[in-house]
Amino acid sequence: MTAETSAPLGVAVIGAGYWGPNLIRNFRASPEWDLVAVCDLDTERAREVVGAQSEIEVTGDLAAVLARDDVAAVAIATPARTHRALAEQALRAGKHVLVEKPLADGVEAGRAMVELARHSGLVLMTDHTFCYTPAVQRIRELVEDGSLGEILFVDSVRINLGLVQPDVDVFWDLAPHDLSILDYVLPGGLQPVGVSAQGGDPLSAGKSCLGYLTLPLAGGAMAHVHVNWLSPTKIRQMVIGGSKRTLVWDDLNPQQRLSVFDRGVDLIQQSVDSADRRTASINYRLGDTWAPALPEREALGEMVREYAAAIREHRDPATDGDAGLRVLSVLEAAQTSLRAHGALVEVAAPAPVLEIVQ
Amino acid sequence: MTAETSAPLGVAVIGAGYWGPNLIRNFRASPEWDLVAVCDLDTERAREVVGAQSEIEVTGDLAAVLARDDVAAVAIATPARTHRALAEQALRAGKHVLVEKPLADGVEAGRAMVELARHSGLVLMTDHTFCYTPAVQRIRELVEDGSLGEILFVDSVRINLGLVQPDVDVFWDLAPHDLSILDYVLPGGLQPVGVSAQGGDPLSAGKSCLGYLTLPLAGGAMAHVHVNWLSPTKIRQMVIGGSKRTLVWDDLNPQQRLSVFDRGVDLIQQSVDSADRRTASINYRLGDTWAPALPEREALGEMVREYAAAIREHRDPATDGDAGLRVLSVLEAAQTSLRAHGALVEVAAPAPVLEIVQ
Amino acid sequence: MTAETSAPLGVAVIGAGYWGPNLIRNFRASPEWDLVAVCDLDTERAREVVGAQSEIEVTGDLAAVLARDDVAAVAIATPARTHRALAEQALRAGKHVLVEKPLADGVEAGRAMVELARHSGLVLMTDHTFCYTPAVQRIRELVEDGSLGEILFVDSVRINLGLVQPDVDVFWDLAPHDLSILDYVLPGGLQPVGVSAQGGDPLSAGKSCLGYLTLPLAGGAMAHVHVNWLSPTKIRQMVIGGSKRTLVWDDLNPQQRLSVFDRGVDLIQQSVDSADRRTASINYRLGDTWAPALPEREALGEMVREYAAAIREHRDPATDGDAGLRVLSVLEAAQTSLRAHGALVEVAAPAPVLEIVQ
Amino acid sequence: MTAETSAPLGVAVIGAGYWGPNLIRNFRASPEWDLVAVCDLDTERAREVVGAQSEIEVTGDLAAVLARDDVAAVAIATPARTHRALAEQALRAGKHVLVEKPLADGVEAGRAMVELARHSGLVLMTDHTFCYTPAVQRIRELVEDGSLGEILFVDSVRINLGLVQPDVDVFWDLAPHDLSILDYVLPGGLQPVGVSAQGGDPLSAGKSCLGYLTLPLAGGAMAHVHVNWLSPTKIRQMVIGGSKRTLVWDDLNPQQRLSVFDRGVDLIQQSVDSADRRTASINYRLGDTWAPALPEREALGEMVREYAAAIREHRDPATDGDAGLRVLSVLEAAQTSLRAHGALVEVAAPAPVLEIVQ
Repeated sequence: MTAETSAPLGVAVIGAGYWGPNLIRNFRASPEWDLVAVCDLDTERAREVVGAQSEIEVTGDLAAVLARDDVAAVAIATPARTHRALAEQALRAGKHVLVEKPLADGVEAGRAMVELARHSGLVLMTDHTFCYTPAVQRIRELVEDGSLGEILFVDSVRINLGLVQPDVDVFWDLAPHDLSILDYVLPGGLQPVGVSAQGGDPLSAGKSCLGYLTLPLAGGAMAHVHVNWLSPTKIRQMVIGGSKRTLVWDDLNPQQRLSVFDRGVDLIQQSVDSADRRTASINYRLGDTWAPALPEREALGEMVREYAAAIREHRDPATDGDAGLRVLSVLEAAQTSLRAHGALVEVAAPAPVLEIVQ
Repeated sequence: MTAETSAPLGVAVIGAGYWGPNLIRNFRASPEWDLVAVCDLDTERAREVVGAQSEIEVTGDLAAVLARDDVAAVAIATPARTHRALAEQALRAGKHVLVEKPLADGVEAGRAMVELARHSGLVLMTDHTFCYTPAVQRIRELVEDGSLGEILFVDSVRINLGLVQPDVDVFWDLAPHDLSILDYVLPGGLQPVGVSAQGGDPLSAGKSCLGYLTLPLAGGAMAHVHVNWLSPTKIRQMVIGGSKRTLVWDDLNPQQRLSVFDRGVDLIQQSVDSADRRTASINYRLGDTWAPALPEREALGEMVREYAAAIREHRDPATDGDAGLRVLSVLEAAQTSLRAHGALVEVAAPAPVLEIVQ
Repeated sequence: MTAETSAPLGVAVIGAGYWGPNLIRNFRASPEWDLVAVCDLDTERAREVVGAQSEIEVTGDLAAVLARDDVAAVAIATPARTHRALAEQALRAGKHVLVEKPLADGVEAGRAMVELARHSGLVLMTDHTFCYTPAVQRIRELVEDGSLGEILFVDSVRINLGLVQPDVDVFWDLAPHDLSILDYVLPGGLQPVGVSAQGGDPLSAGKSCLGYLTLPLAGGAMAHVHVNWLSPTKIRQMVIGGSKRTLVWDDLNPQQRLSVFDRGVDLIQQSVDSADRRTASINYRLGDTWAPALPEREALGEMVREYAAAIREHRDPATDGDAGLRVLSVLEAAQTSLRAHGALVEVAAPAPVLEIVQ
Repeated sequence: MTAETSAPLGVAVIGAGYWGPNLIRNFRASPEWDLVAVCDLDTERAREVVGAQSEIEVTGDLAAVLARDDVAAVAIATPARTHRALAEQALRAGKHVLVEKPLADGVEAGRAMVELARHSGLVLMTDHTFCYTPAVQRIRELVEDGSLGEILFVDSVRINLGLVQPDVDVFWDLAPHDLSILDYVLPGGLQPVGVSAQGGDPLSAGKSCLGYLTLPLAGGAMAHVHVNWLSPTKIRQMVIGGSKRTLVWDDLNPQQRLSVFDRGVDLIQQSVDSADRRTASINYRLGDTWAPALPEREALGEMVREYAAAIREHRDPATDGDAGLRVLSVLEAAQTSLRAHGALVEVAAPAPVLEIVQ
């Protein structure tokens, strides 16, 4: 790597509201990046986040930011419905783009973003933050190296007393986390056969405040996601059942976040008996449990590092636009299923994959 | 109560397999009952359960048992597909009948049993054991006395490494517990608008080994049940969200089985703003948690006591045949939904309610 | 093994109060044993435990029991103050003896029992039940095979809302469990340098209702025991810190009773610096955690099996009279320390070890 | 309050190492304070903490800081052995003083500080941070309002894999937390009858790496503290047993930090029976558990607020120099006990209490 490429990359953060400050903090702390501007219509808020005496430009003028030569990349942390327009403006100005999850507010918008980035030869990355936690990174390794065997089922629960969002329902607010994690750890990414969604609005808030997604996967496996804003107890747990071992991720137990159980049920053989019934020889394994040690590391630091690496190495980032698009496809199909009282809805095929050519 | 009615009632247990011994033990221990016979085709096994030197009759001849004058009631603990025939035989012999859950292997069979019992003026009780635990009794009280307010949602999880049953799937094996509890604690019993069922058979066992039931309830509330034979961790947890308080029942935490959270989300008011969007004033309560003390008491002891009381008082037991029938109706609708890839299926109305007249 | 030795051994249980019924149940269930008599002054209670129609002799006449040729062994489950007299009577009648913990109510009594058994060539076993649980058996293996390295510290907590005993304090009631476990798992058995005891009697019950034992071990290690009758929460946890790994046994967590942590602090080297201070290079290991699977097995069944094996093989049982005596030595020294406001008291050397000669 | 007194107070932080940055952050965030200087011999580190472009003075020259008229108060966050000299220098310059725990490295030093502050009419405060957590504030209320009844016992556990400190043992490092909490919540403060200390140095580190303090309290109550640097599991739990209720504080359970158990043992009456033994009628309460809601609030923010209030109101702060001195008295007596193999050592009486006169 030449001296030139290893110089910090200039970046501007667009949006200094809820998530922006986290991005700002991590870009500042990273040796890979040089945060040169923060853009928010509320410049007072942005100035407060950056600090009164900082040299970082604070502005409400996006065009001016995109005109700067020292800005190689932007990070967009605004409401989802604004993602497409902002991303397209930045891509057209030749900037790499990182977008807060979800990638957009619909599949069409997301697909347009992915295609524009591809044709422009620029990096489009989705900030699926959870994928950069030590826990999820380790889960992906355990799936990839075959420790779990074939994936049989996934059950994910993400519930707590949460903010009832004004513009989105609980699926669009919380499920992107679960779906992006599934996309990251499942072999081949998140490609369910379909999706069935059940939502509850017991407060008559005009949107689902709790709900369930069921995702049949290829080969008979099944994923299920439970999201809930109304639960007084906080649970963030994912069980990944494999043919060899089963993993439980309890994100609220810092002393043992991951447990790998060498326990399970095996179907040894199966035959048809004289009465024409299928019979099976069942075997139960009751083996040890193993809790891998995980480093303590902030996910966002890892995420901004990956953003820089993808740009420098002219490659797709680990959570690229397509990953964001696969999540959108499921969310949109879930909306359709909701309207159809939970009927199984096919998930739109993602955009055809093209390689970045530069 | 006269001396006559307070003499122990004679009872015969039919079936000495998995559950029968528990019934036998509790009938023996109860001052309300006199266990006079155990009937099982495998008389050797029955003899072993009863004890070599016991005076209790052990036989494979059901007709002989039903012919005994000192047998006022029977308890049936055989596979579900045999319940109807055995119950009808007993009812026709003038005996009160207690049936192991589920009441039958289908709604039609169950309805026939309920109707015969009614016309015969005899008690038909379903052994929904969990309803007689101190925890569920207390939950019912908390719902009834308004402590929770209006029920908004119920989420029930019953998963562990379980026996893959040869003749039934995970819904018929485990969900009767959750459904019978719902039937017992919900005001008006279990009367969902419909049911949507998703099942997974990742081992190709020929039946669902894990699955989910979603039950929209009247008024926008929603119940959800997760049953799973393949989970390496055991969870038995039910969350009942109410408009005033929310209850969490963790049956595996003997030190704090029930927690009542005075936490939640309130929708104070709702209006339509100038942009024609509904807006709501949300209020969050972050109050104390309260864990009521529960007595330690075996549920089955309470159940056999209720059986005796219903007979003596010529009334329906707390978990009567109709309760069993409501559970069957949901299970059967769930089967239909499973075949329809999770589509919402209406639940058959239970049999018209007739009062016992004696 | 000849046919003769493998015939069941005749045994009589003396005492049918709190613990006796458990022994009775396990002797009955064991193919190694033939329970022929139960002896209790309260013959009515004993009859109730045994069952009305049983052939087992129920009597209040100990001499008659000891005179029976078909009684090879006895098991004593009476208050500790009566152990010596009963055991000596049985040993003099040529019977092997199992004694409920603690072995006796003092070192002198215990030593007399041990010596008489030895001179008589009979087995004297202490019922240190916990040593026969799968958890403790596994802990012993992990210590023996070097998995933990050198033992650095042990911290044992056994607290809950317990019965305030009329005749003994909390040390004599609960600490025998912890001490007997230590004796079983520590290399060389429980041989502390001394013991310091602190007791609390905040209810003015006339005895310690909560207390702490500190046991400096050879080589700088330290064991500590916390027993408490007044705690509203129940904790049964033992931490065994080793130079290589540290084990945590949480007996109330059936899903993960044992956890072996590959975490710890190593002192790599140590030197004296110019300022004459010792300095050390500290190393922290932050490795994985491992939870070995444990079988589900009743400890008492294993204990009565070991009793039979010791008799048949003419050897000391795993928890012999000497083990009971080592526990008594600590308890008695603790009493002395209590009276001396917690001063460190030397623990009396156990009796010289003689081999059984038959 | 006049405009003058409500203007922010000028403060300088001395020491920018481990704890200093936390103080700096909280003084900056507080409207009560104006952080004007940070003093550290390592000015580079101090500059880094403060930020490159800050107007706050960064210096290594303490005399210059103390000479500033706009510095009304200092906060000392340096090693304990330097506390006395620094505090005396500041007090002589007429500055109020806050000192990191422990107040000093010995009772004599601490007493000198307390006396000088008193004679100078200046505030001397000990930063017993835990006392300002919502949990401890609530515990104090529950003790004060009689909810727990009379305190019977306290058991505090503070263990985890911790840094083996170069200059202090585990008692001086960790026990000040437990002791300062006890001092804050016990009626009348921490005034034990004596202290017995047992320390373990199984790594031959030249100091105790784990240890136990036993503190008999007036009236037969007992407090016990377990501190440990070598435990692979982290536990921070305090049980406070009262005559009416018992409180458990589990600081690592954010969902239920405090539990108040209405469970316990009562000694109803006590008499001397004919055999001259004391007998008692025991009563067990098995009531509900209650978990009070706690606000989420940073303790240090509350602490600096109290520092300002004490200065403005010419009163002692909640954790004043005397509180620090009582903690030192126990630590010093514990050192003596350690050398005496755990013998009970009397705790030096604290300095006579004088009121601040201004």
